[in-house]
Amino acid sequence: MPTGDLGVIIERATGTVQIVNTTTETTLAKIDQLGDLSHASIVYSRDERYAYVFGRDGGLTKVDLLKQEISNRVIQSGNSIGGAISQDGRYVAVSNYKPGGVKIFNSETLELVVDLPALGRDGQTSKTVGLVDAPGQKFVFSLFDSAEIWVVDLASGQPKVTKFYDVGSKPYDALISPNGRYYIAGLYGEDGMALLDLWYLDKGVKRILPDYGKGEQRLPVYKMPHLEGWAVAGNRAFVPAVGRHEVLVVDMNTWKQVGSIPVYGQPIFVMARPDGRHVWVNFAFPKNNTLQVIDTETLQVIHEKQPGKAVLHMEFNPRGEKVWASVRDENKVCIYDTSTFEQQKCLPADSPSGIFFTNRAHVIGL
Amino acid sequence: MPTGDLGVIIERATGTVQIVNTTTETTLAKIDQLGDLSHASIVYSRDERYAYVFGRDGGLTKVDLLKQEISNRVIQSGNSIGGAISQDGRYVAVSNYKPGGVKIFNSETLELVVDLPALGRDGQTSKTVGLVDAPGQKFVFSLFDSAEIWVVDLASGQPKVTKFYDVGSKPYDALISPNGRYYIAGLYGEDGMALLDLWYLDKGVKRILPDYGKGEQRLPVYKMPHLEGWAVAGNRAFVPAVGRHEVLVVDMNTWKQVGSIPVYGQPIFVMARPDGRHVWVNFAFPKNNTLQVIDTETLQVIHEKQPGKAVLHMEFNPRGEKVWASVRDENKVCIYDTSTFEQQKCLPADSPSGIFFTNRAHVIGL
Repeated sequence: MPTGDLGVIIERATGTVQIVNTTTETTLAKIDQLGDLSHASIVYSRDERYAYVFGRDGGLTKVDLLKQEISNRVIQSGNSIGGAISQDGRYVAVSNYKPGGVKIFNSETLELVVDLPALGRDGQTSKTVGLVDAPGQKFVFSLFDSAEIWVVDLASGQPKVTKFYDVGSKPYDALISPNGRYYIAGLYGEDGMALLDLWYLDKGVKRILPDYGKGEQRLPVYKMPHLEGWAVAGNRAFVPAVGRHEVLVVDMNTWKQVGSIPVYGQPIFVMARPDGRHVWVNFAFPKNNTLQVIDTETLQVIHEKQPGKAVLHMEFNPRGEKVWASVRDENKVCIYDTSTFEQQKCLPADSPSGIFFTNRAHVIGL
Repeated sequence: MPTGDLGVIIERATGTVQIVNTTTETTLAKIDQLGDLSHASIVYSRDERYAYVFGRDGGLTKVDLLKQEISNRVIQSGNSIGGAISQDGRYVAVSNYKPGGVKIFNSETLELVVDLPALGRDGQTSKTVGLVDAPGQKFVFSLFDSAEIWVVDLASGQPKVTKFYDVGSKPYDALISPNGRYYIAGLYGEDGMALLDLWYLDKGVKRILPDYGKGEQRLPVYKMPHLEGWAVAGNRAFVPAVGRHEVLVVDMNTWKQVGSIPVYGQPIFVMARPDGRHVWVNFAFPKNNTLQVIDTETLQVIHEKQPGKAVLHMEFNPRGEKVWASVRDENKVCIYDTSTFEQQKCLPADSPSGIFFTNRAHVIGL
């Protein structure tokens, strides 16, 4: 069976995942026994055969899309928050809350290769967040409690760690630009964001977007927008504002905010259609029944729809002709034509959350 | 067998192709009886199972990477020059010299769905060139003899053709920008290039880069650089100069030339590493034993190597950690680490030319 048009949908309430086909738009199989999948995410092996599922309970599960079964599973910590796969596909890294730190595994065997406790300069262990892969066999992540960013270089097989201190208070999530150059962490403890240019590590971390989050009450972490969802179209990034009904427009040459677009609620995911002409936005509770579509040239909302209660995530087909949206409280995943915005069909799913297609295997930072 | 880490190498002299694996860096199979493969190219089905091989003799061959055999083959014209697959994967289009025109096939059965003779406004049939796919179920191509660009919209299932006249003398090849927005045709009969913004068809075709090719003797078409190889890094495109030992730097916001980089010979392919930090360049005879690497920030040549006689094509791994280069006259394909530039290994191949990895299935315009 070929694997280029497959995907996995997380069913968070039941600890199950669905394997789906994006050509036939059907469910191929359901796999259970994956543990706590609230806030789970996935990366793919470079052959698009295996999905590595990062569960909230510290479980790292390797799902075989061909055999439609679990091929391996380890409980690697008590509480984890996401992972990444190295540029060459040989290593899978997991970021942990309890105990903090990052563990790096052989992607074939899930044997532990590198254990990196996140012991900050302050002598305390830290939660780790915002873990991504970067070109040159690197992983990058942030230390929530110690305000640090670490770059781990595995090019030689032995980890070489470069640490950046005082990056800003409580980095809570991060993203990497689509070309793998810029690592940007959101700060929970203060306004603004921390930017690291991975092409020039010697320039260090600088602060950008000083008004980001400004004047907002500190919100619980689980309500902060997902930074990995930043959309880039041309030179501009479309960024979910914190606690406001706005999508911000940021010039990626200057890292200044150049506009803001009023939207229906507090944005959670702001995702660019692969051609960059539109961005699709979902929202926090209680506005989470709605999707809006923004034209990236006119900066206007050009379409709005109500897929149903609790629209949690979206995923575009690789070339962007369709988008899939999970509607958790209505137990369905709905598929829309991204040109006409018409609904094509819905598939039943148990409390679906994240949707991940196999083309992510080929993309830096996903 | 998964299909995410496969590729196909054209062996032009023998009418054969190799199926390769980019994880193990090995040849899996050799398929013969594909006809005249000089100047052949390939697109992939959206599941990454089938390679559609466009031969010079008008042959369209569908190769099954899983079964490692030809699954279907039609001779669709007397002389063809390349093809494309639609955004949703349902249609494969082929561009023809003799007779001119474009034929569109059902990608599953290779049944002819649409026959578009390229009858220009001048009443003459034309060679067609520069055929690409674009978002919104579109194909775009140029009429060499009639100086036209046609956009074919298949969203409704019925072709809707929009024609642009007087685009410039003798368009000979074209490219589409990575986001699928800009279609740019090179002109054989005059200086400059023709640009069509596919987001705003009503604005028509405009002329850009008025000095492109200026003052050069008209060269045979087969020596013109490959436009599909344009590299984009940030806002800048890196473009092979015509007949000069230069790579041109073009600002994609203004479409003005903003720099030129002296290189070893007449560039043929100028290709960006997926992260955009480097571009790799090969050259026309007699300088075709060499590759050069340009840093896209400093615009300096930072590395040079001699893989051997007649380096015809390069292909990067999806996340860019390696590059494969075909060395036709030494019957080998060599693999290099793109960070250290070190040679990893070489695979034997009979007069290899184009190299195409399956991740192209997921990319607009490839």
